[in-house]
Amino acid sequence: MRSVLVVGGGPAGLSASAELADLGVPTVLVEREGSLGGNPVRWKYPVLVPDLRPAGEVMDPLISRVASHPNIERLLAASVASVAPSPTGFHVTIRQGTETLERDVGAAILATGFEHFDPHRKHEYGYGRLADVLDFKDVERMLAEGKLRRPSNGAVPRRVAWLLCVGSRDIQVGNTWCCRMGCAVSIKQAIEVRERYPDVEAYVYYMDIRTPGLWEKLYWSSMSEHGVRFIRGRIGHITVAPDGQRLLATSEDTLLHRPMEEAFDLIVLATGMEPGPGTSEAARVFHVPQGPEGFLAPRSAESNPVDSGTPGIFLAGAATGPKAISESVTEGMGAALLAYRHVRA
Amino acid sequence: MRSVLVVGGGPAGLSASAELADLGVPTVLVEREGSLGGNPVRWKYPVLVPDLRPAGEVMDPLISRVASHPNIERLLAASVASVAPSPTGFHVTIRQGTETLERDVGAAILATGFEHFDPHRKHEYGYGRLADVLDFKDVERMLAEGKLRRPSNGAVPRRVAWLLCVGSRDIQVGNTWCCRMGCAVSIKQAIEVRERYPDVEAYVYYMDIRTPGLWEKLYWSSMSEHGVRFIRGRIGHITVAPDGQRLLATSEDTLLHRPMEEAFDLIVLATGMEPGPGTSEAARVFHVPQGPEGFLAPRSAESNPVDSGTPGIFLAGAATGPKAISESVTEGMGAALLAYRHVRA
Repeated sequence: MRSVLVVGGGPAGLSASAELADLGVPTVLVEREGSLGGNPVRWKYPVLVPDLRPAGEVMDPLISRVASHPNIERLLAASVASVAPSPTGFHVTIRQGTETLERDVGAAILATGFEHFDPHRKHEYGYGRLADVLDFKDVERMLAEGKLRRPSNGAVPRRVAWLLCVGSRDIQVGNTWCCRMGCAVSIKQAIEVRERYPDVEAYVYYMDIRTPGLWEKLYWSSMSEHGVRFIRGRIGHITVAPDGQRLLATSEDTLLHRPMEEAFDLIVLATGMEPGPGTSEAARVFHVPQGPEGFLAPRSAESNPVDSGTPGIFLAGAATGPKAISESVTEGMGAALLAYRHVRA
Repeated sequence: MRSVLVVGGGPAGLSASAELADLGVPTVLVEREGSLGGNPVRWKYPVLVPDLRPAGEVMDPLISRVASHPNIERLLAASVASVAPSPTGFHVTIRQGTETLERDVGAAILATGFEHFDPHRKHEYGYGRLADVLDFKDVERMLAEGKLRRPSNGAVPRRVAWLLCVGSRDIQVGNTWCCRMGCAVSIKQAIEVRERYPDVEAYVYYMDIRTPGLWEKLYWSSMSEHGVRFIRGRIGHITVAPDGQRLLATSEDTLLHRPMEEAFDLIVLATGMEPGPGTSEAARVFHVPQGPEGFLAPRSAESNPVDSGTPGIFLAGAATGPKAISESVTEGMGAALLAYRHVRA
């Protein structure tokens, strides 16, 4: 049986690799980071939406299936340098450090994932300049380590605000799309904070709360059971409060229709999802088109989001747009199935 | 090779059946309606979100792959009456009219889909009583047939409103979840109406606009290119206007913070998605748990939404919660892969 190349070792790539390997397909997994797991592991997500299940319960079994499978060649800290058609599929050149490896594969699955939006790009929010302005990942890490603190003075915060859509739905930074996960993840963080620190007041600034489908229960319970408060408005800028200690968020409350200034001890920026350099690189070497947003464009997003349109090249996960982990895992299976049918023929 | 039973002939079940059959697995497809295609075909959806692609371009190839495949036994207007464990998997009794069929299968995929919320249940909106109050499906059919008319007098409407979240996010009717598709489908309909009837004014009443991920472009273009107007508020009730002709929608505009009465020629109720009787029946005969909302509950929604937790029983599509067609197709592939691994072992 011909082998399959999987590019990317996040949830989608891990799922695809594990399924292919279990079907007896020799699989080559190329991951540019030094370890497997993708963003959930790299940024230490503690629990997942919608059921606040520990991330490890989902990621660990996926990683161990791949890490020990005899049918998978794992190439970490590696990237695909070039691809050429070959009689049996694709001749692939892979760079790993100073080494150059050559592999012949029958099909490829591109699961190159996403990057978190860099909050430094929204100067008006002061990330990197104001110590107590954090981003989503900083808080995930604090929660994973079990301590939420103000970086400025090490104290437990009293009032925390989440600011949704940072680098999403924002034509100024060129990201017009929605990051799909920001609302649910912020609400999840607010619930976690309220559970662990019942004295902390939690506020969420939003334009639209997007908890589609069954995720809605997260939104309802955050209000009815956990006392998280929601303010409809977008923060214009963040400055230091007159007391020299706290942060001042200036916004317009679009429900009460009035300007607001509120002081917080900690402000969390819910940064969006962008196609990363790995996705652009994959588009270039595999000649897969990118949509207007920069994500890989399937042949038909409505009918089959894992089919690139090029025979033997399949897509999975956030490489084609913002996705939840569960959706990436399922797409990894779908892509594995199509790749299996392709190489087995 | 042992065979696989697929319950449900909508997008997820069709996708699963076609993939299994292509892998050489004898497949038994049971569909309770008299034809294949599920809700998109039954209700004649004209075009799909987000790219307004004709539904036929997605559904027709899926249906023809299944309709002519020699590895698929198609049992229409049929349902699973009972399931018993057998040495090779499951012994299944299927009812088709007055006939009773018995099949032995190694695995089953439950793809029983959803039902549209019955708008009669929201009395205050007058569906079935006020001729010009339509639901989402009525408008899909009108658009598919190429004519949008007021049922009361046959005239082309001048002002049309879409009312989101009818039977969704509504504790009064017991449906607390979000239907996931209502915003995108309503915006899509409004765009279609504005394109075909440029003189028609289109208004959308919403609580939150939920066009997650790359679907956001639909929302943006509806405003910037198509002049669709959005009003944040939920309509309390619909009555006949003083002129005896039009409809009067009473609401509170939660942005302008004032009560509103607006007259429309046509009001479209964006009805939600509910687990249908087919899903409850499948839960019962296959002993698969249902979540609090009544949808089938995967073992772990976060890690693997197509795995029921019972060996040999897999889930796909809207049976586990509101889904887009593309997501159902992908889940059909994922479930097919797991079922294939199960029966091939």
